[in-house]
Amino acid sequence: MRTTVGIIGGGPAGLLLARLLHRAGIDCVVLEARTREYVEQRQRAGMLEQGTVDALREGGAAEGLEARGLVHQGIELRFDRERHHIDFPVLTGGRTVTIYAQTEIVKDLVALQLADGPPLLFEAQALAIEKPETTAPVVRFVHEGREQTLNCDWVVGCDGFHGIARDTVPAEVSRAYEHDYPYSWLGILADVAPSCDELIYARGERGFALHSMRSPHVSRLYLQVPNGTDPDGWSDDRIWDELAARFAIDADWTLRRGPITAKSVTPMRSYVHEPMRHGRLLLAGDAAHIVPPTGAKGLNLAVSDVRLLGRAFAELRRTGSEQLLDTYSQSCLARVWQATRFSYDMTTMLHTRPDADPFEHRLQLARLRRITASRHAAAELAANYTGLPLQW
Amino acid sequence: MRTTVGIIGGGPAGLLLARLLHRAGIDCVVLEARTREYVEQRQRAGMLEQGTVDALREGGAAEGLEARGLVHQGIELRFDRERHHIDFPVLTGGRTVTIYAQTEIVKDLVALQLADGPPLLFEAQALAIEKPETTAPVVRFVHEGREQTLNCDWVVGCDGFHGIARDTVPAEVSRAYEHDYPYSWLGILADVAPSCDELIYARGERGFALHSMRSPHVSRLYLQVPNGTDPDGWSDDRIWDELAARFAIDADWTLRRGPITAKSVTPMRSYVHEPMRHGRLLLAGDAAHIVPPTGAKGLNLAVSDVRLLGRAFAELRRTGSEQLLDTYSQSCLARVWQATRFSYDMTTMLHTRPDADPFEHRLQLARLRRITASRHAAAELAANYTGLPLQW
Repeated sequence: MRTTVGIIGGGPAGLLLARLLHRAGIDCVVLEARTREYVEQRQRAGMLEQGTVDALREGGAAEGLEARGLVHQGIELRFDRERHHIDFPVLTGGRTVTIYAQTEIVKDLVALQLADGPPLLFEAQALAIEKPETTAPVVRFVHEGREQTLNCDWVVGCDGFHGIARDTVPAEVSRAYEHDYPYSWLGILADVAPSCDELIYARGERGFALHSMRSPHVSRLYLQVPNGTDPDGWSDDRIWDELAARFAIDADWTLRRGPITAKSVTPMRSYVHEPMRHGRLLLAGDAAHIVPPTGAKGLNLAVSDVRLLGRAFAELRRTGSEQLLDTYSQSCLARVWQATRFSYDMTTMLHTRPDADPFEHRLQLARLRRITASRHAAAELAANYTGLPLQW
Repeated sequence: MRTTVGIIGGGPAGLLLARLLHRAGIDCVVLEARTREYVEQRQRAGMLEQGTVDALREGGAAEGLEARGLVHQGIELRFDRERHHIDFPVLTGGRTVTIYAQTEIVKDLVALQLADGPPLLFEAQALAIEKPETTAPVVRFVHEGREQTLNCDWVVGCDGFHGIARDTVPAEVSRAYEHDYPYSWLGILADVAPSCDELIYARGERGFALHSMRSPHVSRLYLQVPNGTDPDGWSDDRIWDELAARFAIDADWTLRRGPITAKSVTPMRSYVHEPMRHGRLLLAGDAAHIVPPTGAKGLNLAVSDVRLLGRAFAELRRTGSEQLLDTYSQSCLARVWQATRFSYDMTTMLHTRPDADPFEHRLQLARLRRITASRHAAAELAANYTGLPLQW
């Protein structure tokens, strides 16, 4: 098989890139290791920056989003039994965010791709990317029981943190930046209407809790738990009781409870791989960087990467210039480090470290108080949360 | 001896409070353990917020400051061999800071106090504050070789971190919040014109450096050094070479060198004592809180405390109401925690921890880049640096 752009990974980054290339008249092939069912059910993020919504529109994939997405005007910060609303449009000159589950985005993109798009192969396991330093890189993969090759002009690795693309970059030119956090999230999906109109970020001495939602009928909630927590050690009642305690402010506010349909524990990590390009291999999304979920930046970073790639390949086709491909890594990393900083700050401001001393607790409260009292501090949070410009 | 307000400590906090009380027609006595010479030569801070300048004016003690203070419009952040100016008036709607050494402030206040002020006793060592829970607290002290008592309506502890006032608050109602930093400052005074018009905060992998000044002819410079550093282990040449390396940006900028007249090492600590009032004993300045010097907040916090005290005692005298004295601790602590947060952030953004990993270095650079690129982030730094409102 041969194509112009070989895309490894059929998550939102790879699928959206395929749409953007297709619209620009560039042929590509998407190789996804898992089944369609698996990919469409993987629970992930659901908070979209304005730029992510724009990119889905640009890719002609915003129909579901526009019908069922929930536009949010802000978030609530809850601490010291007080609630504070951070008003995004007021603080950013009109910007908002949209709640629409990543699983829905993937379903929308898969349907479009299978209807009229370039080839998307499920259960196509990439084995190796060969000759990335040349103008004719090759992806070796297994599909339908036999090993095959995909000859490309360019290869894009959208195969996530555990994929093969990043490891193809030779160690001597790679640099990895890592930070692990001393806590995890126990996340649940529940068939119950959310107890709030917008996300609640709650900080307390019992630990962090986040109230989010997937739709008007499905709530998504998270509890800070120790690393290594077994989700089966948490009964449904215990989860609801702990959530209720962490969100408690006064008698007027109650947490709606309902049947829990999914339960999982996610560790928190920051990771950045530099560079994001090696020869004709380009990395995008989780293949190159991971953020803790507190700032809701993971999916948005991946989409920003492929937006830049879409523009770069379109420019190459139109003018023959590789300039945007040459600056791709540097452009992405400037933005990635800002998102890494913001995610780190949101995470460390809201979670309780197991060995936190009283000084640290007071410092967290001082940060939160400052954000709720200072227009500049609040505007800085809102600007980062709703998304920095693509070219930062 | 008897007085309305007994003030322990003749540093800038105690002396300024005495001026403010004197102007409000309230009698007081200041007890200072050291000699006049010692107090007037102690090297300390020199960066005054607008509110501190206002307070010195209010106390009738701004003549020297107005004649010899240097008004600064901003600071320079230097990193990655780039220089970035943070413009305070533009970012804050016109606010500035003033360079005028604490030693000069003390000299001005001592002269005023001895000329027309309430009693100021040098070499008067406070031994104990008795009955602070009653309306008739007593300070026992030694002066001119004999033990004496000062009977007061109120006692204000301005006796610094190592004074007796804070320890008078019973342990069962006290709470201390502490943080030590894994580095110190080697500070020098040099008889040479500053190499800059405004302060330079330089971050690099060799460690932090700060270029400040005391006057147009005297430079004040600091180097981050490991805790426990012996200043005698640093020759003058080594100090200048290291400073030059940390400030280096390009061939156009050079560091002026001159004779070093003082050299000392200061550890970095954050400390907050709660509450700042116990009965009729009130704590002000370093007696209640310590910040690392990076944010230039120590002297300014002390002055803010005594401004609130001056107002509170004036209100008490005018109306008989103790309301401002009752809210004193809470009002101060809200501001103190914001200054503690700011000092912590400036310190950790600019210094290199001995065990810092590459992730932390990149995170520091991302913070600095954000401040130099975002109006909100820069305005937030400027607002904190030039000083938050007295009643925060």
